[in-house]
Amino acid sequence: MPQFTNTYFDNASTGWPKPPEVAGALSDFIRNTAGTYGRAAYPRVYKTSSMIEECRDELAKVMGVGEAGNIAFTQNATHGINTVLFGLDLHDCEVLISPLEHNAVMRPLERLKETRNVHWKVIPAEEDGTIIPEQIPGIISDRTRLVIVNHESNVNGVIQPIEKIREYIGNIPLLVDTTQSLGSVSFEGDRWDVDFIAFTGHKGLLGPTGTGGFYVRNPELLSPLILGGTGSRSESIEMPLFAPDKFEAGTHNAVGIAGLLAALKNRPKPEWDSYDINALVQGVQQISGVRVLTAEHPVNRGNVFSLVHENLAPSTIANRLYEQFDVEIRSGLHCAPMAHRFLDTFPKGSARFAPSFYHTKGDLQNLGEALKIILNDRNYV
Amino acid sequence: MPQFTNTYFDNASTGWPKPPEVAGALSDFIRNTAGTYGRAAYPRVYKTSSMIEECRDELAKVMGVGEAGNIAFTQNATHGINTVLFGLDLHDCEVLISPLEHNAVMRPLERLKETRNVHWKVIPAEEDGTIIPEQIPGIISDRTRLVIVNHESNVNGVIQPIEKIREYIGNIPLLVDTTQSLGSVSFEGDRWDVDFIAFTGHKGLLGPTGTGGFYVRNPELLSPLILGGTGSRSESIEMPLFAPDKFEAGTHNAVGIAGLLAALKNRPKPEWDSYDINALVQGVQQISGVRVLTAEHPVNRGNVFSLVHENLAPSTIANRLYEQFDVEIRSGLHCAPMAHRFLDTFPKGSARFAPSFYHTKGDLQNLGEALKIILNDRNYV
Repeated sequence: MPQFTNTYFDNASTGWPKPPEVAGALSDFIRNTAGTYGRAAYPRVYKTSSMIEECRDELAKVMGVGEAGNIAFTQNATHGINTVLFGLDLHDCEVLISPLEHNAVMRPLERLKETRNVHWKVIPAEEDGTIIPEQIPGIISDRTRLVIVNHESNVNGVIQPIEKIREYIGNIPLLVDTTQSLGSVSFEGDRWDVDFIAFTGHKGLLGPTGTGGFYVRNPELLSPLILGGTGSRSESIEMPLFAPDKFEAGTHNAVGIAGLLAALKNRPKPEWDSYDINALVQGVQQISGVRVLTAEHPVNRGNVFSLVHENLAPSTIANRLYEQFDVEIRSGLHCAPMAHRFLDTFPKGSARFAPSFYHTKGDLQNLGEALKIILNDRNYV
Repeated sequence: MPQFTNTYFDNASTGWPKPPEVAGALSDFIRNTAGTYGRAAYPRVYKTSSMIEECRDELAKVMGVGEAGNIAFTQNATHGINTVLFGLDLHDCEVLISPLEHNAVMRPLERLKETRNVHWKVIPAEEDGTIIPEQIPGIISDRTRLVIVNHESNVNGVIQPIEKIREYIGNIPLLVDTTQSLGSVSFEGDRWDVDFIAFTGHKGLLGPTGTGGFYVRNPELLSPLILGGTGSRSESIEMPLFAPDKFEAGTHNAVGIAGLLAALKNRPKPEWDSYDINALVQGVQQISGVRVLTAEHPVNRGNVFSLVHENLAPSTIANRLYEQFDVEIRSGLHCAPMAHRFLDTFPKGSARFAPSFYHTKGDLQNLGEALKIILNDRNYV
């Protein structure tokens, strides 16, 4: 019977546990500081404002971008993606997307199709959804205005070759959704010439929910989606034109950002690496009746993978793992019907596994053992 | 020398302190629960989801509305107001507004003017900005599509007569911004036939920043502003049509909502009431050279008031209060240039005072004393 130190394998939904300092930072901020960002001129407010700037600085390091002031905070990555997609004045044009996009991209695109004559085309890809950069020029047209790539799939963990993609798209603006990758896969926004980076604070970065946002290389190109008070240029009923204020109307989630900063400064030291994930994936692939959704080449493999079984529904696998081992995973479509159609797992979806750096090597091995027990148990089928 | 128990008088920027249970709830949630809203099927997620529904139920009580499922969470009230203003498909029409609107309303309206031919007209009001309901019919036209009222001004604390306003606007949709009032002024959304209620969690409700949203009486009339994954109808690249999911794309600020719920369940017992605010206001009005911005009639007077002085700039008053008494207030325009123009305090703004229920009667008296000392000190002028 596998003995886990940590049975939570749903880190692609939200990261847990958090570094212990996060709870302390939330509690400390709410008890002792709890100021606003730039709304007044006493130390509580200065302290809050500089804490928020420090968090932007830490995020800029993780994203590999130099201009921290171009990082705007929103409630979540979805809101960041929406700000980019609706703020670019896209109309009568095409956007290119990876085959593994999440509904955070597809649902806004569907509205842009209906209302602004914006159509999406899927970039040619391998069977696992890995983009084939060399084939990009073949689908670029003079109507192509934007390329959107999910850095790491939340369904099968495929990591897209951003640098190579940039090479083949020329200077078409590039939006990368790092929701699943940031904090566990390295990112070099400036070096890869990424124009827009959407991020969340509560997954790989291990901060609280309610944090996220986006980086924009040239804020002048983007109109804000939400308008309101910014504490700056308050004499005007128009939004300030400078970043980040332009994109941050209304009161910031200052307490959440305090938690995110604590998370960024107290990252756990991983006990396992890609070798262990590969071993786990290979072990699961050998279980009879199982198809593992993962990158074909280990070099593109992130820390997320899914599986489908010939007889057991994804929800059954999730339920049995929980009942027998207390293991928590998510089953279903993971808000990514587009990806499941591409991977031929629509509409049932998959059972998904997302370890974090708070697992031991043993936990990963145990997960493999638990899956063997459940999927090989003929009584269950 | 006045001895304060609490020197924080900037509760109109953000409420502080919070009930002690709030810090505990944030910390407990992040350590022990930290699940998502409806994204999977294990107890951590059920617990989070039912906590969020419980928070909706508590908010519905405070708002006086029956349908808690029509309350949607967003990062702040500004986002809630934007969702209503941009979700109603307003074009080629007029909206009526109070003269005391915040930039959370004015900046979106300015965009609607530029892009959708939506024009705003100010409802006739007394000198303090209190709407004169009887004069509303005179400015309603067949182009009037919406009425927007700031329930309590964040500049002078005037509370608008919502019930009476509804009486005179007939069945024109009504949006009330309760950012400043909810938690300190009673609200009866259903009885007053309010169609849209914008709210924030971090001011009078004493919850954490990062919480807020809106109530919509008829969700069918409103398109979502942000589109993305909802954990529901994941097979579709269109948003679900039902509330609240329709308006809640992306991951919820679950930890913030846990804090808000704790705040709602642990309200402080006020030690002072309107009598004490009136006494404070009257005392300050007697200081030479001072003009107090407040409701003319105490019945319309909320817990916020401002002042301007014939010789001292608002920022000077704020600085001296802090230096001499550690008293924290905000000075300037309070993101409400519209209100200041109406009150003839533009562009300098005002020094603003906003006590909370964590002040004692003595604190209110001490604030009056401190103001007398500072404003009567000839050395300072």
